[in-house]
Amino acid sequence: MKKFINTVDSLIRESLDGLVAAHGDILTLGAEHKFVRRKTLRPGKVALISGGGSGHEPLHAGFVGYGMLDAACPGQVFTSPTPDQMAAAAEATDTGAGVLYIVKNYEGDVMNFEMAAELAIGQVARVIIDDDVAVETSTYSTGRRGVAGTLVVEKVVGAAAEQGRDLAACRALGERVNQATRSLGVALTSCTVPAAGKPTFTLGESEMEFGVGIHGEPGRRRVPMIAARPLAEEMAGAIVKDLGARVNGNGLLLVNGFGGTPAIELYLMYENLRSVLERHGVKIVRSLVGNYVTSLEMAGCSATLSLLDDEVAKLWDAPVHAAALRWGM
Amino acid sequence: MKKFINTVDSLIRESLDGLVAAHGDILTLGAEHKFVRRKTLRPGKVALISGGGSGHEPLHAGFVGYGMLDAACPGQVFTSPTPDQMAAAAEATDTGAGVLYIVKNYEGDVMNFEMAAELAIGQVARVIIDDDVAVETSTYSTGRRGVAGTLVVEKVVGAAAEQGRDLAACRALGERVNQATRSLGVALTSCTVPAAGKPTFTLGESEMEFGVGIHGEPGRRRVPMIAARPLAEEMAGAIVKDLGARVNGNGLLLVNGFGGTPAIELYLMYENLRSVLERHGVKIVRSLVGNYVTSLEMAGCSATLSLLDDEVAKLWDAPVHAAALRWGM
Repeated sequence: MKKFINTVDSLIRESLDGLVAAHGDILTLGAEHKFVRRKTLRPGKVALISGGGSGHEPLHAGFVGYGMLDAACPGQVFTSPTPDQMAAAAEATDTGAGVLYIVKNYEGDVMNFEMAAELAIGQVARVIIDDDVAVETSTYSTGRRGVAGTLVVEKVVGAAAEQGRDLAACRALGERVNQATRSLGVALTSCTVPAAGKPTFTLGESEMEFGVGIHGEPGRRRVPMIAARPLAEEMAGAIVKDLGARVNGNGLLLVNGFGGTPAIELYLMYENLRSVLERHGVKIVRSLVGNYVTSLEMAGCSATLSLLDDEVAKLWDAPVHAAALRWGM
Repeated sequence: MKKFINTVDSLIRESLDGLVAAHGDILTLGAEHKFVRRKTLRPGKVALISGGGSGHEPLHAGFVGYGMLDAACPGQVFTSPTPDQMAAAAEATDTGAGVLYIVKNYEGDVMNFEMAAELAIGQVARVIIDDDVAVETSTYSTGRRGVAGTLVVEKVVGAAAEQGRDLAACRALGERVNQATRSLGVALTSCTVPAAGKPTFTLGESEMEFGVGIHGEPGRRRVPMIAARPLAEEMAGAIVKDLGARVNGNGLLLVNGFGGTPAIELYLMYENLRSVLERHGVKIVRSLVGNYVTSLEMAGCSATLSLLDDEVAKLWDAPVHAAALRWGM
């Protein structure tokens, strides 16, 4: 295993120190590295908190900032943060309007955020993200997995919270965006969890995992590598089939790299996915291409389609200033 | 070779189509994919043009936009664009104040930009970037190589051009920033050029290339993998030694991923490099961490230190809106 680390134990801590030092204008660290928090809180605003295992950076800490999250709780690599971390983040960000937890649908995350909610003093609500159409249950999840669509929910609800919506409205909006968002991922290589020291799985010289999860969980099937165009047909086809009759109108297309795929290939996949989706009747009016919800250094990518109404499109466009997403300011 | 492509021949074209479709608000394509251009030109502004082999994305096309480049000319992977491309880009962006070519110091690029300058009708000047301290000559270069420091020159001169400085002033500023900027890179793996179909070089299970170039060119030496802290000492040490007595005051630290290294490790390297540089007497007041000047999917990273005076810091902070760099708007 070749990685830029000092020790496996200190990896997350040193990386968070770097993140907060590089973005000291917007971020601050909680005691004992329990969470990354917005430097300046806005009294009376609903506090948005997310978190999960590390190894998916920039998700979630890279999305903490104006117009998005108030705090993110990082676990060890691919391991849920503790209820203690989440409760500490809530205490440090709740300015009276309550806390909304945005939780990817993995058993550890769901359970720990539930326990954190029980520890809370103020009002707490949650939104569970389960946008992955690949499989109905998986290694770490009952029901569908939460993957790159999480970014869309965090951005849109973040803008709504910034505009002063209350906790119930933020939760309802988060559920609505999650329902309108579908993703599917493909892996060309595995990643190596530092504590394990060896690849999570292996793929042959010309194989790919269709429907892979963001921890390297198995997908729908292991298949021979195919060209980008037929692959885009299959990926977009699975998403469109799942959304059914709702596929029309405007959409946001997020082509997300898992960490080891060059930008040149991500933009090529974007081009192929976009044309397939438009043929299916969705007009792609918003786009995002890059490494946003990763699996360490895995080669691969996911496609996320989020159906947009005017309200959600406006919230997507609203200013944001986080380490990994910034516009309008 | 597993890559998201249709054919090797159509890779660059399809990828550029995707880039321009995803960023249609700011970018447009030249005829025959010769260049990517800002959608809206500003009459009377010096036109900034860069370019080079593809495979380093987002450099350069991802830096076209308000406050940075006016056009970028993409060659095939790791192959210089043609003089014809550069001349076409100049013709399409020169609104009367002349053209500044920003050229990385590789023989093909330097020669072709020189030929393009001879074809030009208007005023043309150029800045050659040679920020890599690793080696004095290399596979494709006489003299030092141009690497991630190119981003800093493009950003700072882009802001100056936007503020209305003339061609001579933009060139002088570019040369000054290049002189104040030093980089060094390390590779943990090779990359695979699509047309070659196999890795450019091979490294052992516990080896790294210290001083690698952004095309996988050999560096200073092949050495056993070491921990991040001593590696940061060596990388920062080489940069500091090269700058000599000038090392003091404020600096910009860019920790650049080569394409296959997770963000978590880049921020860890940032943290380690920052503390070493500050011990050497530079105060890091500006930071950038991410995949900006890549070598396809190579695992590895580079450190770039750019010494900042107040003027350059202000130009760095000025608004920019490109596909891969955006703030203040």
